[in-house]
Amino acid sequence: MRTTPTPATAHPAEGPGAEGRAGGRAARGALHKGQQTRAAILDAALGLASQMGLEGLSIGALAELMQMSKSGVFAHFGSREELQISVIREYHARFEEEVFFPAMREPRGLPRLTALFERWLRRVSMEIDSGCIYISGAVEFDDRPGPVRDALAAMVLAWHQALERAIGIAIEEGHLRPDTDTQQMLFEIHGLILALHHDARFLRRPGAIDRARAGFARIVHQAATAKGRRADGVTVAPAA
Amino acid sequence: MRTTPTPATAHPAEGPGAEGRAGGRAARGALHKGQQTRAAILDAALGLASQMGLEGLSIGALAELMQMSKSGVFAHFGSREELQISVIREYHARFEEEVFFPAMREPRGLPRLTALFERWLRRVSMEIDSGCIYISGAVEFDDRPGPVRDALAAMVLAWHQALERAIGIAIEEGHLRPDTDTQQMLFEIHGLILALHHDARFLRRPGAIDRARAGFARIVHQAATAKGRRADGVTVAPAA
Repeated sequence: MRTTPTPATAHPAEGPGAEGRAGGRAARGALHKGQQTRAAILDAALGLASQMGLEGLSIGALAELMQMSKSGVFAHFGSREELQISVIREYHARFEEEVFFPAMREPRGLPRLTALFERWLRRVSMEIDSGCIYISGAVEFDDRPGPVRDALAAMVLAWHQALERAIGIAIEEGHLRPDTDTQQMLFEIHGLILALHHDARFLRRPGAIDRARAGFARIVHQAATAKGRRADGVTVAPAA
Repeated sequence: MRTTPTPATAHPAEGPGAEGRAGGRAARGALHKGQQTRAAILDAALGLASQMGLEGLSIGALAELMQMSKSGVFAHFGSREELQISVIREYHARFEEEVFFPAMREPRGLPRLTALFERWLRRVSMEIDSGCIYISGAVEFDDRPGPVRDALAAMVLAWHQALERAIGIAIEEGHLRPDTDTQQMLFEIHGLILALHHDARFLRRPGAIDRARAGFARIVHQAATAKGRRADGVTVAPAA
């Protein structure tokens, strides 16, 4: 699913030095060049989609941005739809790199669940100026059936399933009470992120990040066992 | 702000009988006719905006839908922007009629707050097939400054302020604990509605309405006093 390395290791298009070190053979260089161009187009497309929405993506606008011909862009992405789907996959890959994989290195249970939420929250906070493709894409495509919507829904569902699994593991570890409803908790946590995106981005209301954190602490506190509170490493104040 | 009567009393364009009863004088009839046409266009525009988004509204599409000339539509709404703002105001007026005013007839405190939430939830549930202009509009206009965004934000803020006031009154009435953070509670309640809209409309995941209700019950239960729980008329189960 991943088409470029992680943001942390830089995009190939931005790191031509790496190619120089690897280089030598012409065929390999050409293949590399094609991949670099594709990655650079995808990077620009992701930026464009964050600003204009997935529906704002067009081969023409992208060609202009890249100072390429339209047919040059078409050579890498056969259609606008294919481009949109590639952007969704690229977004998902970066989301996984920034949010999912680092959080998975935390101990099972509440520490991992808290890390998943905190990294998700930070990512959405950083996207306040550009917009989150998952959130805005859901509204753009909620009544437009087709492969783009399907790709977007599949990515969002994969993320929701990962979170629900983390909640389930926190129950297994004895950090959350056994009667915790995993889907209910996921629903409420997701609501906090959506409210953060709405208030910070649309209403420009300050304090939304703290409110999302306080909401999460309250939800977790209410469902946590004594063991869970110790494991989480934070003293959650009694819910207000 | 209101341009047509409430949905419950039917739109003027749909109730010509009323005009017949009131009628007689030609001048008054002509004025009436103009108002009827405007209301009928607005009604169609609201339907179109719910389906296509506010940005999907165009004088041309509306003229076609109404079987009118473009200049006929222009006579009532001088510009696309004016049309969009009129649609937002009409949506707000209907929202007030369906959600706000009936709930305000409930006793001050938790009964009123619960009624506000329950009617909001029902309205969003009914909008699953068409989409909520407040929610989708927020995403459409979050990065497009201008009078349409300003009008939309003003309406959303007015609704949020009404909810926050209701929470404040519930504190005054001794139904919610005095240390309840009204903005925090509003943020969390709003998150439940956004998650409902997302899950039901985009993911088509069943159970979202029940989850939003359960989330609200949990938030209120946690902040309620013994008096508040009695006043609310429901036995809220200990939060899971």
